[in-house]
Amino acid sequence: MRRHILSALVMNQPGVLAQISGMLATRAFNIDSLAVGATENQEFSRVTFVVIGDEKVLDKVRKQLEKLVTVVTVQDYLDQEYVERDLMLMKVSTAGGRRAEVRELAQIFRGRIVDVGQEHVMVEISGRESKIEAFIDRMRDFGILEMVRTGRVAMLRNATITQDLPPDVIPEVSEASAS
Amino acid sequence: MRRHILSALVMNQPGVLAQISGMLATRAFNIDSLAVGATENQEFSRVTFVVIGDEKVLDKVRKQLEKLVTVVTVQDYLDQEYVERDLMLMKVSTAGGRRAEVRELAQIFRGRIVDVGQEHVMVEISGRESKIEAFIDRMRDFGILEMVRTGRVAMLRNATITQDLPPDVIPEVSEASAS
Repeated sequence: MRRHILSALVMNQPGVLAQISGMLATRAFNIDSLAVGATENQEFSRVTFVVIGDEKVLDKVRKQLEKLVTVVTVQDYLDQEYVERDLMLMKVSTAGGRRAEVRELAQIFRGRIVDVGQEHVMVEISGRESKIEAFIDRMRDFGILEMVRTGRVAMLRNATITQDLPPDVIPEVSEASAS
Repeated sequence: MRRHILSALVMNQPGVLAQISGMLATRAFNIDSLAVGATENQEFSRVTFVVIGDEKVLDKVRKQLEKLVTVVTVQDYLDQEYVERDLMLMKVSTAGGRRAEVRELAQIFRGRIVDVGQEHVMVEISGRESKIEAFIDRMRDFGILEMVRTGRVAMLRNATITQDLPPDVIPEVSEASAS
């Protein structure tokens, strides 16, 4: 099954997420990851979903999301050029004097060591999912003590989603930009 | 109001997120960000919340989460040493020949330029919320075209949360580590 990214600009109100995730659960859509973060405009949050399924499923999720009054716009990334990123913090064992090895691999993957313990290090790494998965594979040999991931976010390379926003949203962004 | 981080290990089942976010909405807890990501064990996901409120509120959210059968463990980061990270993708205008300026600032903040357009660049940056906010402030002058954030994830500096897991979870991680 393919994974598809959907991004929804939603009103920043209590209950919005419950509404969205309730809809997804009721219809039994399979969601691989979900990230809810702030946007430039305090009135809105952006929710990025990774939906597992074919294009028909993606289309259904999109249509259901668009029905919710708290959802302002929905963008899919199907057949478009985009940058996707996932961030991971991982605690890796360095027992047996293996810190230098972990450090070298972290550098190769453009990760950063953000904390050092007696027998472990904490690595921060971000990138495409395939890169994160490859790094996880390399670290299994050392011993993965703990990991946490943000879930993916994505952005189209050329078009800007703000151009698709309702007219009343754009001035807010422009004002901020001019300050 | 202070912001507190809560991290829940949850079963990877359809409807879990709806249950959690429904509970949060019903009780009108104020959630600043939420990130749902994969863990080392495919049966579980980790949900990281940023809860706005005092310690009493945090305690209530924690207790409510612990009541849900799909929630395995809940960890709060109150008065503990932890690393927190948020990832942002931002499209910034470089109109008027300002690309070098944006690039320099991105480097100072340890961000990476991940895409270059005719009159904009896309910057990837990760770090503590205060750093991300400072970068946003610097970019306003250039013109923020679009931004998306993952929401925060966090990890304790010393203890490992896996040690708090039910016994049946630990072997899975150890097996993977030994492969």
